Amino acid sequence: MYQFINNGTVTSAKGFKAAGIFSGIKKKKKDLALIYSDSSCTAAGTFTLNKVKAAPLLVSQDVIQSKNEVKAVIVNSGNANACTGEAGYNDALKMQSYCAEKLGINANEVLISSTGVIGQLMPMDKLLGGIDEIVPQLSAEGGFDAAEAIMTTDKKMKSFAVKVELSAGAVTIGAICKGSGMIMPNMATMLAFVTTDAKIETDFLQKLLSKAVKNSFNKISVDGDTSTNDMVVILANGKSGFEVYENSEDENLFYEALEALSIEMAKSIVSDGEGATKLVTINVSGAHSEADADLVGKAVANSSLVKTAIYGEDANWGRIMSAAGNSGASIEPEKMSIFFNNSPVVLPNYNIVLDEAEAKEILSKNEFQIKINLNGGKYSSTWWTCDFSEEYVKINANYRT
Amino acid sequence: MYQFINNGTVTSAKGFKAAGIFSGIKKKKKDLALIYSDSSCTAAGTFTLNKVKAAPLLVSQDVIQSKNEVKAVIVNSGNANACTGEAGYNDALKMQSYCAEKLGINANEVLISSTGVIGQLMPMDKLLGGIDEIVPQLSAEGGFDAAEAIMTTDKKMKSFAVKVELSAGAVTIGAICKGSGMIMPNMATMLAFVTTDAKIETDFLQKLLSKAVKNSFNKISVDGDTSTNDMVVILANGKSGFEVYENSEDENLFYEALEALSIEMAKSIVSDGEGATKLVTINVSGAHSEADADLVGKAVANSSLVKTAIYGEDANWGRIMSAAGNSGASIEPEKMSIFFNNSPVVLPNYNIVLDEAEAKEILSKNEFQIKINLNGGKYSSTWWTCDFSEEYVKINANYRT
Repeated sequence: MYQFINNGTVTSAKGFKAAGIFSGIKKKKKDLALIYSDSSCTAAGTFTLNKVKAAPLLVSQDVIQSKNEVKAVIVNSGNANACTGEAGYNDALKMQSYCAEKLGINANEVLISSTGVIGQLMPMDKLLGGIDEIVPQLSAEGGFDAAEAIMTTDKKMKSFAVKVELSAGAVTIGAICKGSGMIMPNMATMLAFVTTDAKIETDFLQKLLSKAVKNSFNKISVDGDTSTNDMVVILANGKSGFEVYENSEDENLFYEALEALSIEMAKSIVSDGEGATKLVTINVSGAHSEADADLVGKAVANSSLVKTAIYGEDANWGRIMSAAGNSGASIEPEKMSIFFNNSPVVLPNYNIVLDEAEAKEILSKNEFQIKINLNGGKYSSTWWTCDFSEEYVKINANYRT
Repeated sequence: MYQFINNGTVTSAKGFKAAGIFSGIKKKKKDLALIYSDSSCTAAGTFTLNKVKAAPLLVSQDVIQSKNEVKAVIVNSGNANACTGEAGYNDALKMQSYCAEKLGINANEVLISSTGVIGQLMPMDKLLGGIDEIVPQLSAEGGFDAAEAIMTTDKKMKSFAVKVELSAGAVTIGAICKGSGMIMPNMATMLAFVTTDAKIETDFLQKLLSKAVKNSFNKISVDGDTSTNDMVVILANGKSGFEVYENSEDENLFYEALEALSIEMAKSIVSDGEGATKLVTINVSGAHSEADADLVGKAVANSSLVKTAIYGEDANWGRIMSAAGNSGASIEPEKMSIFFNNSPVVLPNYNIVLDEAEAKEILSKNEFQIKINLNGGKYSSTWWTCDFSEEYVKINANYRT
């Protein structure tokens, strides 16, 4: 059993402090965040699959892969330190070591992350000055400041926490994240930082995180692109005094809460997608395999034509069917059925039962479901997408200037 | 040697007649086209890979696969006869047989094609009435009427022809096509009908067409989707008296002309893409394989972020690099270089040499090139794309209504 905590954030779990400040990398807004735990944390992370990887991502990936215990995460917005070559990589190492020095810990206990414009070297004087300034500001109330400092084109701050009743007692999982577009040149990398006071062994933590990310962040689409800086990390400091063991009943309890939290974050990113006005859940069922269910979900979630139709509140089911047909999944189109919420639109054998008035009512909502039953097998998959508006084009046409 | 013919069209090749009329399937505009050759033609075709295939496409695919000689192509716009089940398939067969009857030929000598809204049964009374009417109007001057009748959201009529000097004498290849969005629910299926008075054996004709389509229509992107009705067909009636033989010098001469014609058609479709204001040629070189070159070209051509940046005339090279990184191709990002026309933007090792003023001048043109050198191998590929504007969203948000 888990429940979401009102005003939950990355400092909701015991023993975590945070801060968020303006360091001058951006023009006006907060641009530097720090998350810190006095006691060492096991850590796990998932990173972008884009072959173009930003320098800070490479540095953090090293920390995670070497299975170091971690105490801090330092994150800046306003500059992605991506496509910056060797100089950028050295700047990323400096960001890590300087932060460690100020915290009095080892460099390999610090994860780093950057989001913002690419192809520009980090203004290191501002960043390092910011680190000087942020360390003394760490506090157990700093989660929201940190959440604000990692925003780029996000309109809403994204901060969540859940409380989980394990067999022995309660643990908390807190998080902040950011999204907006799916790609770094937007200053819109997807980042999520999760903390928990449960104790969890490193490899098991990685397994839990990877599974939760697969079922949440990896099933959303704003514009179909993947950033060079995307990263999700989790730190577990054990401060609750309760450990989650693999293959225990607690595993399921903890995982369910972590997945719910991750889905909530993922949905918050989609519904705050650039120019988005609607959050749409796509349920694919009846697939011959999990891979097929995902192919169909992804194709529908990514289709510009489906997304513009959603924006127009147009019951254009043909675009959904055509996207499924193009997905590469093994489907038999004549067996497909499509529903908007529980209202049937097309049943097998192209039996069109669309009720335009009912469809219009559903499509005019801010949130609704598109259910696609392939009626072929027993596998299913859930994806989340947003609509595609003129606003998206405006935001992205003149981003750099 | 080939040259484009001024005002060339599908009736430019000897022995072909055509017509285009209003039959009432659309509200006002011409919606029925017929192409006809008195003498039998060898025929070849390429068809959509979407698993959702429209009924007329299945019927025409049967004709091509059985290697029948063909005399006519009947095409309607305004209704795609897609997702219409068994009733729709029977309507497609009726469209074919009725047209054959009126022309006094066999049903299997007729190719059929439809484009327009999907999920609605064809208004057969109007279609058959239109066939009654169009047959007597066939003429050697009818190419432009036919080109007009296959248009949906296209703004410009698309009609071309080339003259090729073979070793023994000249042959002509004529064509009409339509595009706009890349997907049927837009009423924007990609269709191309090509005629030639050269004599070419069926299997060889298919080989030539498939290769030309691969290097033209299959390398364009308006919105990354593939319609359920896409089709390119070629008819060769031999009326010039000259045959093109496989592995002859004439093969190269003819193929070059066919490819140039196909590229011209493909580019006309991209530059008239929904909401498009720019035609951009993407040259990928230095790839480890042809497949890698295509993956990068396709990813860049399809990226919403690249396309919105082009619309905004924004030299956002990071989006190009990131799209390449996401393409699935084997690339070494630090080796990449990017040029706008001949102006270098990024050189290897993230050496940014972008001249903003020069870039702005190039990006403000209606046509320009993005050259991406992966500096890894010897393979290359050329793609064509258009920009992504607010207008695209407007067109597609409320298409059906």
